[in-house]
Amino acid sequence: MISHSPEDEKWMREALTEGEKGLGLTSPNPAVGSVIVHDGQLIGKGWHHKAGTAHAEVNAIFDAQETHGPNSTKGATIYVTLEPCSTFGKTPPCVEAIKEAGLARVVVGTTDPNKAHAGHGFDLLRSAGIEVETDVLKSECDHLIRFFSKHITTGMPWVIAKSAATLDGRTILPPEHGQWISCEASREDVQAWRRQCDAILIGGETLRKDNPLLTLRGKWAEGREQPLRVVVTEHTPLPGSYHLLNDEFSDRTRIHKGVSLEESLRSLGEQGVSSVLMESGGRLLAHALESKLVDEVVLYLAPILGGGPKSLIPVQKIAAELKGIEVTKIDRDIRVVGRVA
Amino acid sequence: MISHSPEDEKWMREALTEGEKGLGLTSPNPAVGSVIVHDGQLIGKGWHHKAGTAHAEVNAIFDAQETHGPNSTKGATIYVTLEPCSTFGKTPPCVEAIKEAGLARVVVGTTDPNKAHAGHGFDLLRSAGIEVETDVLKSECDHLIRFFSKHITTGMPWVIAKSAATLDGRTILPPEHGQWISCEASREDVQAWRRQCDAILIGGETLRKDNPLLTLRGKWAEGREQPLRVVVTEHTPLPGSYHLLNDEFSDRTRIHKGVSLEESLRSLGEQGVSSVLMESGGRLLAHALESKLVDEVVLYLAPILGGGPKSLIPVQKIAAELKGIEVTKIDRDIRVVGRVA
Repeated sequence: MISHSPEDEKWMREALTEGEKGLGLTSPNPAVGSVIVHDGQLIGKGWHHKAGTAHAEVNAIFDAQETHGPNSTKGATIYVTLEPCSTFGKTPPCVEAIKEAGLARVVVGTTDPNKAHAGHGFDLLRSAGIEVETDVLKSECDHLIRFFSKHITTGMPWVIAKSAATLDGRTILPPEHGQWISCEASREDVQAWRRQCDAILIGGETLRKDNPLLTLRGKWAEGREQPLRVVVTEHTPLPGSYHLLNDEFSDRTRIHKGVSLEESLRSLGEQGVSSVLMESGGRLLAHALESKLVDEVVLYLAPILGGGPKSLIPVQKIAAELKGIEVTKIDRDIRVVGRVA
Repeated sequence: MISHSPEDEKWMREALTEGEKGLGLTSPNPAVGSVIVHDGQLIGKGWHHKAGTAHAEVNAIFDAQETHGPNSTKGATIYVTLEPCSTFGKTPPCVEAIKEAGLARVVVGTTDPNKAHAGHGFDLLRSAGIEVETDVLKSECDHLIRFFSKHITTGMPWVIAKSAATLDGRTILPPEHGQWISCEASREDVQAWRRQCDAILIGGETLRKDNPLLTLRGKWAEGREQPLRVVVTEHTPLPGSYHLLNDEFSDRTRIHKGVSLEESLRSLGEQGVSSVLMESGGRLLAHALESKLVDEVVLYLAPILGGGPKSLIPVQKIAAELKGIEVTKIDRDIRVVGRVA
């Protein structure tokens, strides 16, 4: 493992914080953040707001020059979570903007996952005499673009399976205990995950049993469209019966009838969906895990032992093992996040 | 809530650290710790090592006088996690030792839970002109003596139910995945819990299926007897078949045949057992929880979804809710500790 200076890591953390502001807003582009530092002082910062608009580097350069003058970027260092682009897309290449700004050093978190571009940005910068350092906080920077990376390399969306259960894996409570297993704070936390994703996916069973809304609410809806709401089902649901087919966002609902989960995900990927939050019941979840269609799992465990007759994983085998587990207390609940191993 | 000085809380934390050294060694007495501070300097510390030997306060006074001279305790402050005793037991009352040492101030974590003694220590100290402050870090100090408190007030032992499961509550894996759900670090952590307890209890089913050892191993066995190993069962197990009846600690095994779990626990309490670690299977665990016989739960959750056909709580109802949840990563596993609400 290459070791980087604490100074570089510190500023890359600032760039990550910038980049995280774009989570859920930039699809199909990745979230990217950037800061510019001169003589140990932060002079500019920026993040990518939306596909088709300026990239993080350009926003950071603009910010520095706006507040510290047009020459402020000369000889400075720019930190950017992802390799600067080298080609014309909807905007001019960031490599050119960096050269024009007279930046002396470029510190990058991770390489462009698009094999057709990977490393080209570095080559162009180096041949312009600019110092380039790569892989600073690489795993954090890879995490920030994991949806984009999977989609650009496989055509499939990154799939996060979200579920709520008791400590012993029941997904329903006995009827007298009400509808909610998770506490209010956990349900609010789900909004943060939904906000990051392009689509939410359930099975027909969840549609029929729960008739959910699957919307972003309040502040979580700001600055982006509602996610697509996808139902993978054997049957054609009757429009009159379900919120997904009746509410003000019904144009965001997709019924994938008679197709496999894999086919559904592939067609979403083809439409530019790079991330899917699966909020299905246990049967579809177990199938998705066993079929290796899930990348990440988010579980909310309520501090309850026992419950009703529905299980998180209703199959008698190991559906998946998780790695890189992170546990967080969310009010009275426990949130467990892990990658499928 | 009464507010105490940060200084007093700091030294009480030191006293707690001392007291924790006695966990598992002092039964039927509680673990108690003490430090002595003069002019902002720690001059002595001590903990209760074993029933029948000197109490924490006396050990701290001895330590101070040994290292700083016989007059060092005059005018000093003693911190002790539990109210000093006021009566002759197997040793003279600590209140007398405190008076003799010329200590000016006594800061106490929590009051003696024994109703017959509660507050007497404080009264005697105050009438000797010694300043007394109580309830400093009370909940931490109550936690340290929770086994003793329950036993002295109810006659029943404090019961900790320990179990290991997958993230979705399976207590066995499919046969090809081997015997262990928990990782090695979790199994080592179980030793720390066993070391704190007077007895380990299982049902006949666990005896027959797992034929466990239920021993303290290596460093965990140092300085104390092996815990009692109690089997609550309908049947008389055949001595030849089980480790518990054959190994070098078979004199520590108790077969409670044809009695209820509650009767078993009550008889253990009558024999001076103040803490029981239940390591049973799901059926006895669910029964114990529903019967309100469990005080605390320790769960080790492996990062696995799915497993074999055995559930943590094999009943279709809520067996218990937990409060005061603490989650800790133990290598790849998650440890969840909570009190039964």
